[in-house]
Amino acid sequence: MIVTTNASLLAEHFADTRNQTEKICAPLRTEDYVAQPIVDVSPPKWHLAHTTWFFEEFILHKYMKGYKPFHPEYAFLFNSYYISMGERWQRPMRGNLTRPGVEEIYQFRKYVDEHMMEFLENGCSKEVEGLLLIGINHEQQHQELLMTDIKYILGSYPLFPAYDDSIRIPKADDPGELRFDISDEGVYPIGFEGEGFCYDNELAAHQVFLHKFGLANRLITKGEYLDFMRDGGYSQHHLWLSDAWDWINENEVTFPLYWHNIDGAWHEYTLAGLKPVDENAPMTHVSLYEADAYAHWAGLRLPTEFEWETSCRKLHKSATNQDNFVDRGILHPYQTSQLHDMLGNTWEWTNSAYLPYPRYKKAPGAIGEYNGKFMMNQMVLRGGSCATPQNHIRISYRNFFHPYLRWQFTGIRLAKDIE
Amino acid sequence: MIVTTNASLLAEHFADTRNQTEKICAPLRTEDYVAQPIVDVSPPKWHLAHTTWFFEEFILHKYMKGYKPFHPEYAFLFNSYYISMGERWQRPMRGNLTRPGVEEIYQFRKYVDEHMMEFLENGCSKEVEGLLLIGINHEQQHQELLMTDIKYILGSYPLFPAYDDSIRIPKADDPGELRFDISDEGVYPIGFEGEGFCYDNELAAHQVFLHKFGLANRLITKGEYLDFMRDGGYSQHHLWLSDAWDWINENEVTFPLYWHNIDGAWHEYTLAGLKPVDENAPMTHVSLYEADAYAHWAGLRLPTEFEWETSCRKLHKSATNQDNFVDRGILHPYQTSQLHDMLGNTWEWTNSAYLPYPRYKKAPGAIGEYNGKFMMNQMVLRGGSCATPQNHIRISYRNFFHPYLRWQFTGIRLAKDIE
Amino acid sequence: MIVTTNASLLAEHFADTRNQTEKICAPLRTEDYVAQPIVDVSPPKWHLAHTTWFFEEFILHKYMKGYKPFHPEYAFLFNSYYISMGERWQRPMRGNLTRPGVEEIYQFRKYVDEHMMEFLENGCSKEVEGLLLIGINHEQQHQELLMTDIKYILGSYPLFPAYDDSIRIPKADDPGELRFDISDEGVYPIGFEGEGFCYDNELAAHQVFLHKFGLANRLITKGEYLDFMRDGGYSQHHLWLSDAWDWINENEVTFPLYWHNIDGAWHEYTLAGLKPVDENAPMTHVSLYEADAYAHWAGLRLPTEFEWETSCRKLHKSATNQDNFVDRGILHPYQTSQLHDMLGNTWEWTNSAYLPYPRYKKAPGAIGEYNGKFMMNQMVLRGGSCATPQNHIRISYRNFFHPYLRWQFTGIRLAKDIE
Amino acid sequence: MIVTTNASLLAEHFADTRNQTEKICAPLRTEDYVAQPIVDVSPPKWHLAHTTWFFEEFILHKYMKGYKPFHPEYAFLFNSYYISMGERWQRPMRGNLTRPGVEEIYQFRKYVDEHMMEFLENGCSKEVEGLLLIGINHEQQHQELLMTDIKYILGSYPLFPAYDDSIRIPKADDPGELRFDISDEGVYPIGFEGEGFCYDNELAAHQVFLHKFGLANRLITKGEYLDFMRDGGYSQHHLWLSDAWDWINENEVTFPLYWHNIDGAWHEYTLAGLKPVDENAPMTHVSLYEADAYAHWAGLRLPTEFEWETSCRKLHKSATNQDNFVDRGILHPYQTSQLHDMLGNTWEWTNSAYLPYPRYKKAPGAIGEYNGKFMMNQMVLRGGSCATPQNHIRISYRNFFHPYLRWQFTGIRLAKDIE
Repeated sequence: MIVTTNASLLAEHFADTRNQTEKICAPLRTEDYVAQPIVDVSPPKWHLAHTTWFFEEFILHKYMKGYKPFHPEYAFLFNSYYISMGERWQRPMRGNLTRPGVEEIYQFRKYVDEHMMEFLENGCSKEVEGLLLIGINHEQQHQELLMTDIKYILGSYPLFPAYDDSIRIPKADDPGELRFDISDEGVYPIGFEGEGFCYDNELAAHQVFLHKFGLANRLITKGEYLDFMRDGGYSQHHLWLSDAWDWINENEVTFPLYWHNIDGAWHEYTLAGLKPVDENAPMTHVSLYEADAYAHWAGLRLPTEFEWETSCRKLHKSATNQDNFVDRGILHPYQTSQLHDMLGNTWEWTNSAYLPYPRYKKAPGAIGEYNGKFMMNQMVLRGGSCATPQNHIRISYRNFFHPYLRWQFTGIRLAKDIE
Repeated sequence: MIVTTNASLLAEHFADTRNQTEKICAPLRTEDYVAQPIVDVSPPKWHLAHTTWFFEEFILHKYMKGYKPFHPEYAFLFNSYYISMGERWQRPMRGNLTRPGVEEIYQFRKYVDEHMMEFLENGCSKEVEGLLLIGINHEQQHQELLMTDIKYILGSYPLFPAYDDSIRIPKADDPGELRFDISDEGVYPIGFEGEGFCYDNELAAHQVFLHKFGLANRLITKGEYLDFMRDGGYSQHHLWLSDAWDWINENEVTFPLYWHNIDGAWHEYTLAGLKPVDENAPMTHVSLYEADAYAHWAGLRLPTEFEWETSCRKLHKSATNQDNFVDRGILHPYQTSQLHDMLGNTWEWTNSAYLPYPRYKKAPGAIGEYNGKFMMNQMVLRGGSCATPQNHIRISYRNFFHPYLRWQFTGIRLAKDIE
Repeated sequence: MIVTTNASLLAEHFADTRNQTEKICAPLRTEDYVAQPIVDVSPPKWHLAHTTWFFEEFILHKYMKGYKPFHPEYAFLFNSYYISMGERWQRPMRGNLTRPGVEEIYQFRKYVDEHMMEFLENGCSKEVEGLLLIGINHEQQHQELLMTDIKYILGSYPLFPAYDDSIRIPKADDPGELRFDISDEGVYPIGFEGEGFCYDNELAAHQVFLHKFGLANRLITKGEYLDFMRDGGYSQHHLWLSDAWDWINENEVTFPLYWHNIDGAWHEYTLAGLKPVDENAPMTHVSLYEADAYAHWAGLRLPTEFEWETSCRKLHKSATNQDNFVDRGILHPYQTSQLHDMLGNTWEWTNSAYLPYPRYKKAPGAIGEYNGKFMMNQMVLRGGSCATPQNHIRISYRNFFHPYLRWQFTGIRLAKDIE
Repeated sequence: MIVTTNASLLAEHFADTRNQTEKICAPLRTEDYVAQPIVDVSPPKWHLAHTTWFFEEFILHKYMKGYKPFHPEYAFLFNSYYISMGERWQRPMRGNLTRPGVEEIYQFRKYVDEHMMEFLENGCSKEVEGLLLIGINHEQQHQELLMTDIKYILGSYPLFPAYDDSIRIPKADDPGELRFDISDEGVYPIGFEGEGFCYDNELAAHQVFLHKFGLANRLITKGEYLDFMRDGGYSQHHLWLSDAWDWINENEVTFPLYWHNIDGAWHEYTLAGLKPVDENAPMTHVSLYEADAYAHWAGLRLPTEFEWETSCRKLHKSATNQDNFVDRGILHPYQTSQLHDMLGNTWEWTNSAYLPYPRYKKAPGAIGEYNGKFMMNQMVLRGGSCATPQNHIRISYRNFFHPYLRWQFTGIRLAKDIE
């Protein structure tokens, strides 16, 4: 973890992040904060409290003299998976807690924020800076989960209310034919280098050998995915991985998440409500299983995370020139017109398993539970989505989910071997 | 179903019942209306809407000219199990619905109440009277479920908040030794007779032959149940039914619901918060499995529902002289001093399966789904609890639950054979 | 338990019973002894060993001086559910045991039989006589389970081999219209009285009051059941109990067990192989759920076990004049022409829950686990089937199974109220 | 797939392979052929029939004129997972089939073998040669599964019979300290090259970049694993991957498969019966989860499959000089004295997910289901075990299993980064 900022900048960064989280929740009604419709989705009030607990537990509790926890039971209720930090409320039961209520949780946030600001006034050690940066990044990750969890909570309701009436979803332009950006075989650098924050899973920076390959210039569109569906894609077993075929059959999956066929026309639930499917817009909310079957059907394949990163490094000097959608009030992937869209449109499934890089080092203690212990049975996604905070849109960033999950804004970019 | 009231009295009865339901919810916070911690418990806002749907669907929709449903999707969302009334939202997913919110549901109630009052102004047919009476009784049943579901929702929270700070739970007196009221062998009447409302499952009134038996003069106390626990009751397999022993082991049950051992002293969650166990008060929140194991341990047995009803008929001329606890602001079973307490203290498990009486007739159509289809795999409870509305405390009343359930106010009264 | 026989007769009875069990297994091939296709079905070699263990454990081990168990592990492997007798091999894993092999198990039987005959040579106490009688009856119960388990094991194989080529299944005559035998209201005797063996669940003999009712003069035929099926019986929810409807839907039940529709014609697997359905023969292999739905469809109901016993007492002086099918080499219910068929054709579902009779007394110790602990969540069947040993065809006999089970030879006899 | 042999050699190879399979089953008793104690284990008779079906279905049925299948139902019963070949008997129900019996299955084998030999007499096309080679290799894979499934079937029986009394398990020598073979960073070749058979998953041969690393000169011993256990390895959460910790807790795993603590001394079930644990012998029957936790505890890590293959290429010129244990009658991993043991001792877990190599091409049609569709959620193992046929011990060979499985002969070789 490389840390180069200073305390007052960090305090500002902290305050901005905390504000942004609450801004995301502002359109919610009290009831929306409580539900946990599936185990993967957490109630918004849990996110609000858990991100706060992180600062209380890892910084205030340990480093601020005389700090008194806001409430003795909150550490138990709002720890997510840090076994080192003691017993915790089991994940599938997060939706059972009606108390503490939304109001107490906002009080908890206020209490911790005030103490944090006070604590940071006099500067802090490098060690605390590191933890603070992790805490901020952690909260930003939860901002994205908040958006996708809110989408799931509202999208489970038969009337499909808009999350916020001010959201606009522009119509996408015709993206044109699929073309491929070619990279020659060779040894390429992978992983985070330079200044600024990164997660431990982006390290160590290292080298990989890649054979010649091409990466698609854009994401697959909903129109293209519809062709796959019309061709019976969901019922042709030979297109699917064995586990994918079991998943399809056990869950009776025959179309993408949030899609609804109304009188013969496909619609999808968006954060702006139910809308007709825009065939030019990028496909999203697919599992890796669906992405892989689509690739198979198209006679192509998903890229590895190394191919993805290599192409992206070539095409984007940095991630900073990318306006991400959250900031522009567009909470839906929409345009698919250039490689440029590799950052901040949809998360892009790769066919790489989430495993440690060479010379990966897990941090000691509870913070070491952040990433390393999840390096099994998950697949890597790259690029960031329309719901990803700007700060998390990074060429070396490795997101990871189980291959059957699809409530994130996940999409499909294809690759091919070049002989 | 015997109906003898008239329209204006019924309208008043309707309005009182509707008010009472809202009064029960008054102490809740918005969040408390949403959760469904186990499948048997429904969110309070679901109860509020479902009981309202009943009047809309069975009366207004069918009998009031020009009636427009409040919302086209509510019939789908708030039907509980009336398959005849069309598709319905699946029970285990009731806690996923954050919308409609609490406010809309109160608007729904207001809308239906106003239309009902308008509709009833000009009187109604016997047929509608029958449906209205069922609707009122149905809502009263849900009033009790509301109380027990609220208890479960609040009691799952590690801090155990009081439902309402005004609740008082008086300390019970020493109930004295257990004595038995003896009934001689003979043919006895069973079931509802006379004027007023009853459910179809209380009919037909009929006769049974009983052998000589004795019924305990009072409920088993918490102190007596503690003796069973101290004697290793939960680990002596021979005391338990085979299915009960499986239930014990699969769920690792070693003490009653809502009990917590704090530094060696047993406490229980009550609607007034966490309290030390009162050893003189009646045992409650036990499954039939626990009640039966206790009886076995005591060398006695549970009564049949026919023995229970026969003793009760003898000892209570009617149910009307019984102040029930809801009306007195006591929401916990407490006194165990006389046979008198057969009505309105705890539901009393009987060892009778819930099966139809001779010449039982299921009502035609959807209303016929009210009781008959549940007559399998459930056991009968008698007497009413501290949370039962006065109107549901009736000597012939048959409540029924699966033998492993214990979130209702359920208790133990013993019986014995007299040779 | 009433015991009136003497030791030498009992020894002969013992030897006959043991022989009969092995005769049932004679047509099997070694492989057939091993499988456990569903948890309710036990491998034949398990039955052979378990019935033997019963005599070793309850008699030889306890009463024969110097007796050495055949093998120290067999008590662990072949105990079924007697928790008092120590740890046991879990039921769902019975099919995993390939050792001890069939040969060792027959050696085990021989060893125990020889010791039993030696032990009985000098007579025995009343106490041992009682245990011996239970052991013999226990083995006879397992003879019936052996037949039905063998049927399930062979009937799961896509080629449907005959159990024994010598089995003949005569074609049934037209049974004529359904008529009803009427009993007037009154107090009737129930339960076992007189000399000979009975189970504790048939006691105490007692009285019940019955209202006027009629019991069908014969079982429902397959032709009649087909009418129900053709009328959409399996898809009309209002015909089914709530738990039954769940069972139908979860298991996708749309026709009876062992039925196969081959090119539009219904066939059924019998112990003589796959045969066209004989529409005049009694319906069998239905769950109580199906029997109850059929009754509902027919506008009638199932009898209670008390109505059944009362009619049967009137119509059969005793059970002894009934040739049962096992002895006649017919292993399929076939004729349905007279009330006479109440004994030994199919087990007849009643709508009575399996609960203790008044003044029921559980035997002390492990033998007390025989019946009493199963008195919950099961329904009573009466009459005996074509696979029931003669000795178990008794007017007061109470068989019991969960309402969803149908691998026994279970059938439907209807009843009705007479006003 | 590269094919260089000719028809008469292949016919001989075919016959040898078929004989070897039956030799493996020779010590079994009829009952042992039937059971399926867990879903991953198949009954031996299923293996015998399934491998035969492969030749019938893919070669005789398609290429031999006038060939009549041995039995019309066998294709349905003995297809494993080739969805393209039509409906199939579901895997978890393989243990339910008692028919066809062992004898018919040996007749099936004989029938197919005779037809195959007749068919091969006149030579065959390259296409058939390719299928034949796959069929032979497929059967050899099942030979190993047969050994491990037989071990599981016999090892589930409380008496732990020896599979074959002639098996000898020599005592291992002290393996000496763990040392590391160092490879420098660089680009290395991976995958199958040259003549002879390989699976499609070993292709395309390609290059990888490796950073400097060391690979242990030997497997971890049972003594070393016991140190981990004595240090509380199974209860220290921070040593385990998140999914591993869940697996540990759900399955209450506290020691390796087949281990039994008898009066304080660890024993393990081997194919020669129950034996005291030999602390010098290589650890085996561990899941990847256990292997990874051990590595973590030791401050090291598992190798990637690329590191493993690179070291192995350096240290073994070829695999052919390795006597594998099956041929020497030793069915247990024993010696751990040199890098030499990388081939044919235990399968060695790598920390590489089972994913396609660059330019991997799935074969068209049903044969394409052989490998490709399993490339998800599984981990790669390398090297072959004591139960692996000689022909499957190949430096480029990729075996794969789910990370929680441990009924194969799986062991632990460690690696480390060299800075």
